[in-house]
Amino acid sequence: MSLPILGQFDPAFTKIMNEVMVMLRASFQTKNHWAHPIDGTSRAGLEAMIASLIEPGDRMLVPIYGRFGDLFVEIGERYGAEIHTLNCPWGTVFDPEEIIAEIKKVRPKVVALVHGETSTGRMQPLAEVGKACRELDVLLVVDAVATYCGADVRADEWNIDALIGGAQKCLSIPSGIVPLTYNDRVDQVIKRRKKVERGIATDADRLAGSSTPIRSNYFDLSQLQDYWSERRLNHHTEATSMEYALHEGLRLVLEEGLENRFKRHKVNEAALMAGMEAMGLRLFGDPKCKMPTVTCVSVPDGVNADEVRDILLNHFAIEIAGSFGALQGKIWRIGTMGYACREDCVLHVLAGLEAALIRCGAKIDRGKALQAAMDVYVQELAAVEN
Amino acid sequence: MSLPILGQFDPAFTKIMNEVMVMLRASFQTKNHWAHPIDGTSRAGLEAMIASLIEPGDRMLVPIYGRFGDLFVEIGERYGAEIHTLNCPWGTVFDPEEIIAEIKKVRPKVVALVHGETSTGRMQPLAEVGKACRELDVLLVVDAVATYCGADVRADEWNIDALIGGAQKCLSIPSGIVPLTYNDRVDQVIKRRKKVERGIATDADRLAGSSTPIRSNYFDLSQLQDYWSERRLNHHTEATSMEYALHEGLRLVLEEGLENRFKRHKVNEAALMAGMEAMGLRLFGDPKCKMPTVTCVSVPDGVNADEVRDILLNHFAIEIAGSFGALQGKIWRIGTMGYACREDCVLHVLAGLEAALIRCGAKIDRGKALQAAMDVYVQELAAVEN
Repeated sequence: MSLPILGQFDPAFTKIMNEVMVMLRASFQTKNHWAHPIDGTSRAGLEAMIASLIEPGDRMLVPIYGRFGDLFVEIGERYGAEIHTLNCPWGTVFDPEEIIAEIKKVRPKVVALVHGETSTGRMQPLAEVGKACRELDVLLVVDAVATYCGADVRADEWNIDALIGGAQKCLSIPSGIVPLTYNDRVDQVIKRRKKVERGIATDADRLAGSSTPIRSNYFDLSQLQDYWSERRLNHHTEATSMEYALHEGLRLVLEEGLENRFKRHKVNEAALMAGMEAMGLRLFGDPKCKMPTVTCVSVPDGVNADEVRDILLNHFAIEIAGSFGALQGKIWRIGTMGYACREDCVLHVLAGLEAALIRCGAKIDRGKALQAAMDVYVQELAAVEN
Repeated sequence: MSLPILGQFDPAFTKIMNEVMVMLRASFQTKNHWAHPIDGTSRAGLEAMIASLIEPGDRMLVPIYGRFGDLFVEIGERYGAEIHTLNCPWGTVFDPEEIIAEIKKVRPKVVALVHGETSTGRMQPLAEVGKACRELDVLLVVDAVATYCGADVRADEWNIDALIGGAQKCLSIPSGIVPLTYNDRVDQVIKRRKKVERGIATDADRLAGSSTPIRSNYFDLSQLQDYWSERRLNHHTEATSMEYALHEGLRLVLEEGLENRFKRHKVNEAALMAGMEAMGLRLFGDPKCKMPTVTCVSVPDGVNADEVRDILLNHFAIEIAGSFGALQGKIWRIGTMGYACREDCVLHVLAGLEAALIRCGAKIDRGKALQAAMDVYVQELAAVEN
């Protein structure tokens, strides 16, 4: 990011943009043509996709199993969608059949589904829902902000029509740019709504302009197509340094290899969980659908959740998260994502958490957490060597 | 920007956010409480302001004197505004009385006006329009993307209700974050439309929720207020590295001092203009309303505009711009903005331009441009020393 700034239409910069598109396709496991970032934070990617797909009155089904399902509802409502929701208790996910039955009932234009709910640490299986959406001609939009580049997300194989990733999570570049991809089914909707903006539209553009254009200019994916293609029609000025970060982040992901990367996240997750259980802490939520990139743990009775977080931050320079809504103060959320998903980080957080809990008067099993976590790494190393 | 990433709610980071607000107020010459960035490129700031103010059917008056007036129309239309426009020939600006007469006729909720039209290199006087808007209880929204931190823009003194600056122009930080400020008059409209999002809303929030919420979630300034205040209610994850850039960019602006900075832009503009006129080139547009930060020059007859730009880029590593619409191929636009607004840059661009024009067969006065520009700098130095 400290490289000199290039002009947005400098061939040296458009080469970087094109390379980013190629690497994004690989990272999303897709053959889609369209794969580019939005200049904004993660929810800008979600809003760009919903804004470009939803016309007022369109039906949108949102299965909610945590806070970020609610966010899809928020965005959809603001673009005039007729919202239908499904709910399940926080800490679990949906049986795909339940979602599919609701799709058949509601017949929405769009199903918006969170892949990894960072608020509860759960991960929703997508393949069956994707298959059903394709058969029923429904568009499946997936928020993979918290799993992208940390857990397996297969755009094409799972029939995901539009997929939004994250930056500052498992890709481990700074917040402020958000990668997405979408297929021809989405492209058809977007192209039908295309309207090149005044001031740069040609006569042909004006004649072809849609009568139901996308309701945001900044998030208009049809205009972004003209910017991210050979036409290079000016829309915004691409965020240069963030683009460098995205390019380098993707290069590192592909150098490591997706499979290796997903494996690394699983191993560190296992060590973190083993350490916390050895300490006597109770993990939160249904283990069958646990996200590998976020581990939620219940705050022991009588312990002040924020006090422990303050000790970790102020003495150990480690930040762990609380949660939202009904889970606020009840669980901590610990990320093992991207660059920070490694042995030393896991051991440091366990050591700090144990010390903070002792200091706050919690009854825990002392001296066991680090041994349990180190055992996981040693076993893993042995398995690799054999 | 290469400093380590901090968590968005880390006290070390919220301190940076608060310092940014203080410095933004100084840079906008305002006592407004609200002064913060939007995570996106410049037009994200324009859209956040229009989205937060305009409800469907609201009247919005846009005086257009270049491409970025058209952009205000685009954004306003998409948020359902009843748009009224005024037009004047590109290369000129409006007599303020003409705008004021139209305001009295249309009685809009919002007047959206570009301060510096980078597409034509013109700058619209704002003080009289601001005064009239205040008297008539109309909100004045100003796009100062291309003048902010390079030319004088006075939010309070000129009665500008909402003001949007730029990043990669005269502030000279990378594109991807956009500073804005607004006053209590705008705040009242925004607060009336406030609706805290599902998933983090308390019961009190839900009861108080507006029935006409802002139509974008990402650009909802009422939610951004909760993020940029002590409540620190999660909205997006602030773009960490961009925030560092903004902090340092503002620090440098204020260290130099606004008056010194505006003076520096005027001196370099004068040298650039003197050089081009000495070469025999014709400056484009009405000199009475020329922007100090962009200089437009007519492409001489028989010269291919893009060929000259290619020579400058490929041989001299200098990028100058063309323009849009009717001016495409007719003028070049040369920026003297922020970090690049200095003697060596002006002299290099004049040297390169002279060589490129000679190479393309243009009849120009040789060897005079650099002398004329250097004379300006020498005279300026003498004036300072006396």
